Amino acid sequence: MERIIKRGFASDNNSGAHPAVLQAMADANAGHEIAYGDDYFTARAIEKIKEYFGSEIEVFFVFNGTGANVLSLKNITESFNSIICAETSHINEDECGAPEKFTGCKLLPVKTENGKLTIEKIKKHMYGIGFEHHSQPKVISITQVTELGTVYTIEEIRELSNYAHENDMYLHMDGARLSNAAVSLELGFKEFTADAGVDVLSFGLTKNGAVNAEAIIFFDKKLAENFKYYRKQGMQLGSKMRFMAVQFEALLSNDIWKKNAAHANRMAKLLSEKIAEIPQIKITQKVEANGVFAIVSAEIIPKLQKEFFFYMWDEHRSEVRWMTSFDTTEEDIEQFVALIKKLLDLT
Amino acid sequence: MERIIKRGFASDNNSGAHPAVLQAMADANAGHEIAYGDDYFTARAIEKIKEYFGSEIEVFFVFNGTGANVLSLKNITESFNSIICAETSHINEDECGAPEKFTGCKLLPVKTENGKLTIEKIKKHMYGIGFEHHSQPKVISITQVTELGTVYTIEEIRELSNYAHENDMYLHMDGARLSNAAVSLELGFKEFTADAGVDVLSFGLTKNGAVNAEAIIFFDKKLAENFKYYRKQGMQLGSKMRFMAVQFEALLSNDIWKKNAAHANRMAKLLSEKIAEIPQIKITQKVEANGVFAIVSAEIIPKLQKEFFFYMWDEHRSEVRWMTSFDTTEEDIEQFVALIKKLLDLT
Amino acid sequence: MERIIKRGFASDNNSGAHPAVLQAMADANAGHEIAYGDDYFTARAIEKIKEYFGSEIEVFFVFNGTGANVLSLKNITESFNSIICAETSHINEDECGAPEKFTGCKLLPVKTENGKLTIEKIKKHMYGIGFEHHSQPKVISITQVTELGTVYTIEEIRELSNYAHENDMYLHMDGARLSNAAVSLELGFKEFTADAGVDVLSFGLTKNGAVNAEAIIFFDKKLAENFKYYRKQGMQLGSKMRFMAVQFEALLSNDIWKKNAAHANRMAKLLSEKIAEIPQIKITQKVEANGVFAIVSAEIIPKLQKEFFFYMWDEHRSEVRWMTSFDTTEEDIEQFVALIKKLLDLT
Amino acid sequence: MERIIKRGFASDNNSGAHPAVLQAMADANAGHEIAYGDDYFTARAIEKIKEYFGSEIEVFFVFNGTGANVLSLKNITESFNSIICAETSHINEDECGAPEKFTGCKLLPVKTENGKLTIEKIKKHMYGIGFEHHSQPKVISITQVTELGTVYTIEEIRELSNYAHENDMYLHMDGARLSNAAVSLELGFKEFTADAGVDVLSFGLTKNGAVNAEAIIFFDKKLAENFKYYRKQGMQLGSKMRFMAVQFEALLSNDIWKKNAAHANRMAKLLSEKIAEIPQIKITQKVEANGVFAIVSAEIIPKLQKEFFFYMWDEHRSEVRWMTSFDTTEEDIEQFVALIKKLLDLT
Repeated sequence: MERIIKRGFASDNNSGAHPAVLQAMADANAGHEIAYGDDYFTARAIEKIKEYFGSEIEVFFVFNGTGANVLSLKNITESFNSIICAETSHINEDECGAPEKFTGCKLLPVKTENGKLTIEKIKKHMYGIGFEHHSQPKVISITQVTELGTVYTIEEIRELSNYAHENDMYLHMDGARLSNAAVSLELGFKEFTADAGVDVLSFGLTKNGAVNAEAIIFFDKKLAENFKYYRKQGMQLGSKMRFMAVQFEALLSNDIWKKNAAHANRMAKLLSEKIAEIPQIKITQKVEANGVFAIVSAEIIPKLQKEFFFYMWDEHRSEVRWMTSFDTTEEDIEQFVALIKKLLDLT
Repeated sequence: MERIIKRGFASDNNSGAHPAVLQAMADANAGHEIAYGDDYFTARAIEKIKEYFGSEIEVFFVFNGTGANVLSLKNITESFNSIICAETSHINEDECGAPEKFTGCKLLPVKTENGKLTIEKIKKHMYGIGFEHHSQPKVISITQVTELGTVYTIEEIRELSNYAHENDMYLHMDGARLSNAAVSLELGFKEFTADAGVDVLSFGLTKNGAVNAEAIIFFDKKLAENFKYYRKQGMQLGSKMRFMAVQFEALLSNDIWKKNAAHANRMAKLLSEKIAEIPQIKITQKVEANGVFAIVSAEIIPKLQKEFFFYMWDEHRSEVRWMTSFDTTEEDIEQFVALIKKLLDLT
Repeated sequence: MERIIKRGFASDNNSGAHPAVLQAMADANAGHEIAYGDDYFTARAIEKIKEYFGSEIEVFFVFNGTGANVLSLKNITESFNSIICAETSHINEDECGAPEKFTGCKLLPVKTENGKLTIEKIKKHMYGIGFEHHSQPKVISITQVTELGTVYTIEEIRELSNYAHENDMYLHMDGARLSNAAVSLELGFKEFTADAGVDVLSFGLTKNGAVNAEAIIFFDKKLAENFKYYRKQGMQLGSKMRFMAVQFEALLSNDIWKKNAAHANRMAKLLSEKIAEIPQIKITQKVEANGVFAIVSAEIIPKLQKEFFFYMWDEHRSEVRWMTSFDTTEEDIEQFVALIKKLLDLT
Repeated sequence: MERIIKRGFASDNNSGAHPAVLQAMADANAGHEIAYGDDYFTARAIEKIKEYFGSEIEVFFVFNGTGANVLSLKNITESFNSIICAETSHINEDECGAPEKFTGCKLLPVKTENGKLTIEKIKKHMYGIGFEHHSQPKVISITQVTELGTVYTIEEIRELSNYAHENDMYLHMDGARLSNAAVSLELGFKEFTADAGVDVLSFGLTKNGAVNAEAIIFFDKKLAENFKYYRKQGMQLGSKMRFMAVQFEALLSNDIWKKNAAHANRMAKLLSEKIAEIPQIKITQKVEANGVFAIVSAEIIPKLQKEFFFYMWDEHRSEVRWMTSFDTTEEDIEQFVALIKKLLDLT
């Protein structure tokens, strides 16, 4: 197997880490620290996160996004509950049934056009309440940025959280690309999470430039009461926690997270603008963050993938997904578009 | 919270990482790699591991030791099985019920004097075979180095694996400190794992100087057939896998793993020799790797812990556990012993 | 609370038991029998079942339909699998998430018009095969009679089983009303189960006139190898098994099952014919067994329910479900229809 | 397979049902009742149970003792909890891991001499509280009558419940033979359950003469809040509930339960007295209810079992278990003892 090195558009987690992240890990590598999170660096990282999300939160670091989502959900459900989510959501499509296995709950997938849940769509699943034969809806789970590259507005989130709370339910947000959403919305993290009624957040910085930096944030401390046990039982408690913690501190300092996300979003915008000029290609979703979805002639896709790796989104309709990253360059975009044009005989 | 820096004897995972590990991570940080393990660095790391364990293995990287143990066990059991282990084993005592939760199996803890299982002890649990009311024994799980700092000989392992296989069971080894065992036994990894009949191994290098490097190794490829799904569903599939992979390669190159383990073992030996000279302290286990267990006057323990952090092992009998690490120095030992003597009014 | 006694149209499990069932229980009540199924009566009942389904089967009695479905599915899946079923299926709608909880699998609900799966509908879920991020489809589960009162033809079942087997999957049939289907199809049980490629069957006679008589039948004995352990671990192993067994023998003797099912089906047909004459009511599903689905003016429903209890099927469209039973009489139908007409001012 | 009919000493669930039970089932078999427990007979049976246990309870009928135990435990635990029980307890030995599978909890088996837990024995497991690596003890589960035929006194139960409550834990009682205990203690059910601090009770009458009559009783109604969902998701909700309910009413009326239990206990006493006269046999446990445990020459056991079926308890020490039942006769005892004497050449 050869080393790739060349940047493609497969996923923002195909990129490496921001240099500041590795530097922070090296800087933390002296002497002993108590393992499992009871250390200086973890305390500092949590303080840094509180600067963004407010002090009345509980924060727990975990290994990956699936762990963050599944353990968030486990903590706020009983096994007889159901979890309402978009059919395209990561928890429904890309976690190999981890939520069902670990929570015992039923997932209720909702068909959407753009990856976003709406109250109207959710309502169709709101029946059988109190009826013991029926899984009881307890969580609305949304992804911000959605898996289709779209971004919930603050009002949309607020509507969903109000609806959830009126129905004795929780609102969970999968924020694997929360930084890209913040930049897209031009809002601070707190404004469209805690302040918009989100109860539990999976906060990921891995795709923003970390090695692996994922956290679960509870906006109501009481919700977190037993969480430490679930994290351990869920195999998500790291021993040398300092190395996870400093990644958060590094990216959340000096606006690195914001610069990274802004750049990735800008690259997606640039790509989409150039693609929009190609009549043979149809962009299928609003480009609100760092993903571009498009219908492309099936013939050219393999040739294109050979040079710039990316994934099919929907084989049936020849739809592809192009993700940009903090390290995508304008040259990458230009070369990619040039190749597309060449393959389409447009040059 | 203040930074500790000062080295103690709490655990080998209170230490940081070997510089070669962080260097390898930095070196891998260029360009894009396919996420989730289908990349150049992961392939290289697996090749490196095969140099030690033979080519007929399957290797999967996971996040932590609990993940390695639980997913190993899940893969070789049905939910109606039982798993025989030492009462003191990590899977029984220190994983918050993760094995039961994820596998559905019953753990059968066996009382031991030194952390080691024997056929005689195991046999007491070998009844009710074929009887549907009774959980069916399927795995013998041993820890090498044991949680009590002792090391199974190659003959002891072979006896257990023979017994397991004769009874249609598997032998799992929790090798969180496998390097320390290899050095202690003066054997290659393969000799006392694959060649001694181990079926599945949790192979950890985190305690040896990695940031987090844990792998599951199947010595029969057929056992691994479905494992990739369990890893994902078990929330243990990392995205930027290259950063886990290179840690293995770094430590397994240039004998760093061996130097680290040999040093840690030597420091434990040194500590135990100095402690043996103190009549008020009774060493309770053979010092075969990097842990020293001793009964110490309860009065001096808090004062000692204040300067050099470590854990109580058994409060009832005032037994402590002192772990040495790859970064423990002779001065650490000397100062520690000097303090003990001072607290015992021996100086 | 008062005793109802009066027969309604709520469900065939609101009826009591056929007298032959209670007589058989009384007849079995002498002396001791080995508990848990290793007894004379269980052996006899299994022989009786084999007369219908062939001798190359394995039969296990369980307590209820949910138990039969969930344990069937557990036995033929790994936790990373998915199970394709109709959105309206009992396993998806009416088991409070029991399949997810006990199997760990994901259910993939398919929207249907009439409760029946088709290959075309199933195909939309057949992707991501071999891709570890995605739950792997392993079972197609159909209900015969469907929850909408329709009946799969032998050809439809054969198509589905062929498709399942071609894709390394199993076909499970929830036969809570299998007798009604057999009568409707004018076929023997074996012809549209084993012979049509069904792998595992939940065979229920409770709705046919038993107290509680549910069995799981494996048509490939190898599939049943470990099942006894799952039954016990799944809390579905009865102690005084003889009392469950004799119910099967009683109903499967002297064609009682057939007479009961034929009668129930005939009553549904009669009801539907009389309802068809009422222009204000629209029958929404083919009446192929013992259920009638109809859209009825919301105004009259509560008044009607007061005299003859039944359930709403879909509140949104004012659709009701009327089930007939082995003990429904022509007078029940006549009085019921007369009341409907009266409430609609048709008399 | 031949019908046995002949009574043995294998288990009280090898017996059939008391005639009053079958009569009650026949009497309930008229007309329709709402399924799943919302019916006249279930309401009546619950009222009858309240006559014994007080009105401030919640009662749920389930199918079997394993279901009663497992769902009781599920309802009062989180998956990270542990459950302390005797090594010999049914939940630990005879439920094929059902508690672990459905609750996710760890069972902590305690070695006892007579099947009874004591605070002293429990205390050894009470450590690691608040430590996330360690399963958190939450339930003490005792069996009354124990699996060794002994009976907890009211003071012993009170001590355990006090200890449980002081440590923020619950006391669960597996009362599969509660009637035998009540007779043995000459106490009402309430006195040694609710009044002695038991929080949740598995109350079984199957062994007392029912077909299958098992209930879960919560003595604090708040504990039962979500229980109906767990019962359904746990596959333990019966449809034609009336037939389970009337069994309770039948046995709890006219002191049938008491007569049955008193008779069974008396037969065990008689047996033990006669056995005590045989010097070659050593009775190993106090005979406080309806079981006799004894060490018998291994040679005669198979011959004895051929005439009167019973089970080995401990093969290693040639210990047998002889259970008496409500239908055991004095002649059974006499013939059995005579045969023993004959086999031992004492006649």
